[in-house]
Amino acid sequence: MRFIKNGVTAPIGFKANGLSCGIKKLKNSDLALIYSIKMCDAAGVFTTNKVKASCVVVNSEHLKNGKAQAIIANSGNANCMTGKRGLKNSRTMAASVANALGLNNEDVCVASTGVIGHPLPIEKILNAVPKLVNGLSRKGSEGAARAIMTTDSTLKEIAAEFRIGGKRVRIGAIAKGAGMIHPQMALAPHATMLCFVTTDASIAPSALRSALDVATQKSFNMITIDGDMSTNDMVLVFANGMAENKTIKENSKDARVFGAALEALFLKLAQLIVRDAEGATKFVEVRVKNARSLRDARTVAHAVSSSTLVKCAFFGSDPNWGRVAAAAGQSGAEVDPWKMKIYLGRELVLENGGAVKKRAGILDKVFAKKDIKITLNLGLGKHSATAYTCDLSMKYVQLNSAYHT
Amino acid sequence: MRFIKNGVTAPIGFKANGLSCGIKKLKNSDLALIYSIKMCDAAGVFTTNKVKASCVVVNSEHLKNGKAQAIIANSGNANCMTGKRGLKNSRTMAASVANALGLNNEDVCVASTGVIGHPLPIEKILNAVPKLVNGLSRKGSEGAARAIMTTDSTLKEIAAEFRIGGKRVRIGAIAKGAGMIHPQMALAPHATMLCFVTTDASIAPSALRSALDVATQKSFNMITIDGDMSTNDMVLVFANGMAENKTIKENSKDARVFGAALEALFLKLAQLIVRDAEGATKFVEVRVKNARSLRDARTVAHAVSSSTLVKCAFFGSDPNWGRVAAAAGQSGAEVDPWKMKIYLGRELVLENGGAVKKRAGILDKVFAKKDIKITLNLGLGKHSATAYTCDLSMKYVQLNSAYHT
Repeated sequence: MRFIKNGVTAPIGFKANGLSCGIKKLKNSDLALIYSIKMCDAAGVFTTNKVKASCVVVNSEHLKNGKAQAIIANSGNANCMTGKRGLKNSRTMAASVANALGLNNEDVCVASTGVIGHPLPIEKILNAVPKLVNGLSRKGSEGAARAIMTTDSTLKEIAAEFRIGGKRVRIGAIAKGAGMIHPQMALAPHATMLCFVTTDASIAPSALRSALDVATQKSFNMITIDGDMSTNDMVLVFANGMAENKTIKENSKDARVFGAALEALFLKLAQLIVRDAEGATKFVEVRVKNARSLRDARTVAHAVSSSTLVKCAFFGSDPNWGRVAAAAGQSGAEVDPWKMKIYLGRELVLENGGAVKKRAGILDKVFAKKDIKITLNLGLGKHSATAYTCDLSMKYVQLNSAYHT
Repeated sequence: MRFIKNGVTAPIGFKANGLSCGIKKLKNSDLALIYSIKMCDAAGVFTTNKVKASCVVVNSEHLKNGKAQAIIANSGNANCMTGKRGLKNSRTMAASVANALGLNNEDVCVASTGVIGHPLPIEKILNAVPKLVNGLSRKGSEGAARAIMTTDSTLKEIAAEFRIGGKRVRIGAIAKGAGMIHPQMALAPHATMLCFVTTDASIAPSALRSALDVATQKSFNMITIDGDMSTNDMVLVFANGMAENKTIKENSKDARVFGAALEALFLKLAQLIVRDAEGATKFVEVRVKNARSLRDARTVAHAVSSSTLVKCAFFGSDPNWGRVAAAAGQSGAEVDPWKMKIYLGRELVLENGGAVKKRAGILDKVFAKKDIKITLNLGLGKHSATAYTCDLSMKYVQLNSAYHT
């Protein structure tokens, strides 16, 4: 697998565009479109928050037949908790693109991200659709990626090329997210992290869904910024088959190759989101090993990476492994303090229920770094999981309190 | 029921004391003792964190027979994750008091609060025990309350008098806590909120345990400051029967009277802890009504009161009900956005899945107050629960990152 340019427009047959339609002030880019010249097999994972934005509801209807050809996405407004009018507006948004591109309404997916509870300015979107469609191009990925940014400070775009059965195939993706990040997405439709993925691979719908689900569980569903799950989180993947490889079947060797590539790309994007976290100064990897079950491993990794006190300690560069241990113990997972070992970086700090004596300053060195690794060896089984998080800074609080609804 | 003075020494037969033994710097008070001149029926609820401090382990042993007569507590060191030596130190601490007071070791409970992972300076404690015991007095509650404070800025002490079957009985309590507060305590032994309760009521052990459990569930277990559950949380209640009322039996009218009084005192102390939260500027009550089950009501109240983004909005005085709705939806409880109503203060802001139009500025007024009430009517059943929380301020982050292990 090698990394290539052009994000979602790297795979054959995909075009994209992004522009400002006026939802955001200061004429910032806020409307994106991704289009495949050929009908795609499509799948999505959506937030499991029971309060779902209209776009999540509409996409779950539109993806029932597993087919789609375009995605329209706006930033600056989440179109969530906007009542029946909100649902109608998401449908109208999809329909306007369908109309302009000669597609069925059901073949257009829709996504929104921004403030909750404000009516979507649908007229601005409808007025911009002709220009948005006209500007579709094979170089449009960056424009689309820019148009879905909210509090993001970095543009998140990635693409890779690899071989399936001798044929070159490509996967491209764009993503956004820097706050309200604690995605737990599932295939059963229920984002505000958004990720749009394109591929020219030919892949069976069941294999596509399965690859999407597995890759999401190990990447996006293992990151947290603030512990707050959005109402709009989604990952959409479109496969148009234009690479003309032999169709990838579920559970095949080719499916494993495709899945590994997808997972590698998702992991990079998930890490980019955490590195761009609002107010963050640290990137932290929380590895849990030897848990009794996979569920326990994930639960402990999530609990440690979500702990307010642990995250304050990261911000203060304080090697406070006591907070790490307490967070693990609170997780609900099977944890035995007498069997647990904790490492800060490569330094063992806890074993046999008590502190391991360290030379003065050695732990401070680990915590002074921008990238920190923490490992909890639970000593109870064979399962492992890794979560990715950031520190909790005063700037994060400032950003999210100065914000006005 | 009327409130009276003298905290844990208000009930007949209880004495207390507090002093500095040198664990804390600057000679701040750090060692407390509470003693009943008569053997007590005793019960405790303890943290459900699987990483438990030594004092929690020792108390669960010492309370097996439901009897105890003294509590020794230190601040400045949690004696948690301190290995086998930690356990031995907690036992030694209890034994020293037992020795000085002529009690069995098992009749002394022990509590510690402070930094995790540092060896307890047991010699300092042992050296101070004679003076601590000699200073026991019927006016010693305040001194004891002061000696268990860590980052607390207010002393937490309360007492009340009421009648059981014509006889006056008293309940007194002291508590501490301002950070690492998200207690979930249970009778099955498993702080760093501490609460020590004394009563001169005569009460059957089963009735005492039941009253303690019910009152804890509705008070301490419904508060959060930072979502981090301590390894040391505990509430201990001692009943010496010296009021000479007819012994209160489980499920009796008298048990309900006693239970209601205990709950009222716990709720006041729980609220005092939240009002003293590290860096906090707001006190917030989150009421959940008409949930499908009590568990759901509590789950939603906890999710909203623990949300980082909701708490940042409180700090910014931003009436961001969208974050409230998203936190409810994330909770895992049964929530239907189309049936949910949200009130900020008395203002209905969400119904029928969308915003209710408000006059400009009216919500800002609600959020400008120091005390804020939020109500979520889930519209799904008959169950309700109330949680108490505070805002997340830049000062909280500063306090908990400047802290050095």
